[in-house]
Amino acid sequence: MVLAIDRRIGKHAILLAMSNEQEVSSLTIPVQWKSCIGKVGSMDSQKVVAAIETAAKREGIIKTEGYRETHALYHAIMDALSGVTRGQVQLGAVMRTVGLRFAVVRGNPYEDVEEGDWIAVALYGTIGAPVRGSEHETIGLGINHI
Amino acid sequence: MVLAIDRRIGKHAILLAMSNEQEVSSLTIPVQWKSCIGKVGSMDSQKVVAAIETAAKREGIIKTEGYRETHALYHAIMDALSGVTRGQVQLGAVMRTVGLRFAVVRGNPYEDVEEGDWIAVALYGTIGAPVRGSEHETIGLGINHI
Amino acid sequence: MVLAIDRRIGKHAILLAMSNEQEVSSLTIPVQWKSCIGKVGSMDSQKVVAAIETAAKREGIIKTEGYRETHALYHAIMDALSGVTRGQVQLGAVMRTVGLRFAVVRGNPYEDVEEGDWIAVALYGTIGAPVRGSEHETIGLGINHI
Amino acid sequence: MVLAIDRRIGKHAILLAMSNEQEVSSLTIPVQWKSCIGKVGSMDSQKVVAAIETAAKREGIIKTEGYRETHALYHAIMDALSGVTRGQVQLGAVMRTVGLRFAVVRGNPYEDVEEGDWIAVALYGTIGAPVRGSEHETIGLGINHI
Amino acid sequence: MVLAIDRRIGKHAILLAMSNEQEVSSLTIPVQWKSCIGKVGSMDSQKVVAAIETAAKREGIIKTEGYRETHALYHAIMDALSGVTRGQVQLGAVMRTVGLRFAVVRGNPYEDVEEGDWIAVALYGTIGAPVRGSEHETIGLGINHI
Amino acid sequence: MVLAIDRRIGKHAILLAMSNEQEVSSLTIPVQWKSCIGKVGSMDSQKVVAAIETAAKREGIIKTEGYRETHALYHAIMDALSGVTRGQVQLGAVMRTVGLRFAVVRGNPYEDVEEGDWIAVALYGTIGAPVRGSEHETIGLGINHI
Repeated sequence: MVLAIDRRIGKHAILLAMSNEQEVSSLTIPVQWKSCIGKVGSMDSQKVVAAIETAAKREGIIKTEGYRETHALYHAIMDALSGVTRGQVQLGAVMRTVGLRFAVVRGNPYEDVEEGDWIAVALYGTIGAPVRGSEHETIGLGINHI
Repeated sequence: MVLAIDRRIGKHAILLAMSNEQEVSSLTIPVQWKSCIGKVGSMDSQKVVAAIETAAKREGIIKTEGYRETHALYHAIMDALSGVTRGQVQLGAVMRTVGLRFAVVRGNPYEDVEEGDWIAVALYGTIGAPVRGSEHETIGLGINHI
Repeated sequence: MVLAIDRRIGKHAILLAMSNEQEVSSLTIPVQWKSCIGKVGSMDSQKVVAAIETAAKREGIIKTEGYRETHALYHAIMDALSGVTRGQVQLGAVMRTVGLRFAVVRGNPYEDVEEGDWIAVALYGTIGAPVRGSEHETIGLGINHI
Repeated sequence: MVLAIDRRIGKHAILLAMSNEQEVSSLTIPVQWKSCIGKVGSMDSQKVVAAIETAAKREGIIKTEGYRETHALYHAIMDALSGVTRGQVQLGAVMRTVGLRFAVVRGNPYEDVEEGDWIAVALYGTIGAPVRGSEHETIGLGINHI
Repeated sequence: MVLAIDRRIGKHAILLAMSNEQEVSSLTIPVQWKSCIGKVGSMDSQKVVAAIETAAKREGIIKTEGYRETHALYHAIMDALSGVTRGQVQLGAVMRTVGLRFAVVRGNPYEDVEEGDWIAVALYGTIGAPVRGSEHETIGLGINHI
Repeated sequence: MVLAIDRRIGKHAILLAMSNEQEVSSLTIPVQWKSCIGKVGSMDSQKVVAAIETAAKREGIIKTEGYRETHALYHAIMDALSGVTRGQVQLGAVMRTVGLRFAVVRGNPYEDVEEGDWIAVALYGTIGAPVRGSEHETIGLGINHI
């Protein structure tokens, strides 16, 4: 029931999302876990959601069939977007845009095997006006049982 | 005006907040920047805000006199708490508690010196029911001009 | 001033919204009350609002002239949508869609005639990904004085 | 993957929460499902959460051990509270109180057995000023995979 | 149905709330309207709501009996508090305090007499840290049919 | 550190936004302050943000170069929009439209010169259904250090 020190799924996901290609190759996650990374830039929050869902299904992190795992992933994405947008989950509607790297990690972060699989969605990048450089960093993390 | 690659103030803050004591000692930030780290655990969101403000003032990250810098820090804390709480900035009122490490970093993350100082507040830890182990990780980042 | 046991306007509205055509025909509401039911499915929250408003005016639940009753209905719809969306009143923008049955009921649910008319908007149906079957049920109820 | 017509878990939960003792006894749910009902009245949202969690564990709807099922229930409760409070999940802090009946139902509402168990939390009652009769009905429904 | 130029109820309410005693005496509102002003300072949002409700009832702006007018006033207060708090309707819970002047005005701001009475709640003052001077101005306006 | 009585930047901004052309000409603000006023009507929140930003840059209230001042203005606009929309920063998506006058004022409202410049964004006008006359007044104020 207790989080295992070396299986911090959120920390692993954040490190994956924050690392450049070189750094990523030096990161390790527990062998039985699954993960994928990707990039998405948009003023349209729908495209951010779609990009992450598509990648997670294509890379086999969640099942493409059925609703259960899609539902778990969706709410992890929404939670991560809350951190990125801090208040209103809106981008273009309030004239801002994001450039994000994302990571999705699936595994059991608890010492007890009964806890089963959990999913972590981490987002890292920039948010700001739709003008190059008028932006600052932003981060979001969502974790759900799956 | 563009974010400098090696001066990602949010990434630095998150790494500080996510690292244990040993790891922290191996992290580097730009020499002219200021930073502090701390811990706070509570069901009371007010205590989280107070702990970060107190540390930032005691460690000289922001001025203790005047309102301007306090105002900048306060909104960075609120943004970081949005990521941690994802939706409603409430802890005990919705029966959950947090155990957080925080980092506050101050410096100019842009290539242009005219952008002046910015402040980043990073939070990393766990959120969950007030029962040991019934919790998962959570993260938040707030960035503001100061 | 007290809610009358057999004039629970919200319960009546929810039962209307949750019932299929056969079941609806067996439901009763106080004779002096007005009500209408309808259906709307969309990724566009604006269309949900419009469908309910149009039906309520067409069926004579509220006056088509003037602002007062439109204002009362509008906020009852918004409250019902809060229950359906739980957090952010957004559909397509966060890549989800709804298929809803709605009921609008107008009458006085209190024992005291001085309380005048109130309006209840009930929504029942499904919310989920824009993929058939990838959805679960959702409900919302808004009540306002009119 | 499609919701089964006679296994609408949210509708079942709402009907349980809206029914008085006599009506409840005439309701049926699928035999392999589990459910419980209860009552809670408070200005303190924490007490509402606690009452539902306690009942669900005591009645064996979810496991008392481990975090996974508690996490699923918690978010279903939060979603239901969103519908009840419509905007800010706050009661006493904005000077209002609730008197609620709740139902928790666990089962698979989908035709495909692979979808596994889901949990529905339904709330029905009144919300209003802390003065007898100064209140109207309110409803909330949260559904989560478990 | 159209707002009358000289009966801007919101503008009147804001001017009342923003004026000192001397300025208030020079303001005029339509003769058949009712209004009251008052002050409240607190870290407790409940006290702000209570102070406005109490004043509005004591000064005869709304009826003390029945729920209908209390309900209309309550939501106008909540809307005004949204403007004051900008995001989360929380004060002490996020370590901030307010010092507010409030005005409640009741009348018909429309050219058409059929629109009946409306109520405006205006709040003006300061919000900030619980330290003298660490604060800036804040404003909120809520308008509802009554 | 204390707000100066005759330099209430928010009050000045609100009065500018609420005044017609004749009234504006009789208002005074501290000589070293900068201000601009404008109008915007839209169902699209993005256009409201853009209109204010464009005016503030064109009139020299904030620098057109760099991100720092744009960031300060942006959050003041968002805060003002929170007051206008009261809950969800959405217009057309929830089928409502605004007709607003805005004022942006820059200056130091504190007695201590160390507090530097602050920016106030005030919005005043109407919000309602996209039907002439089906609207009521609305107000919003955002204040930020710059």
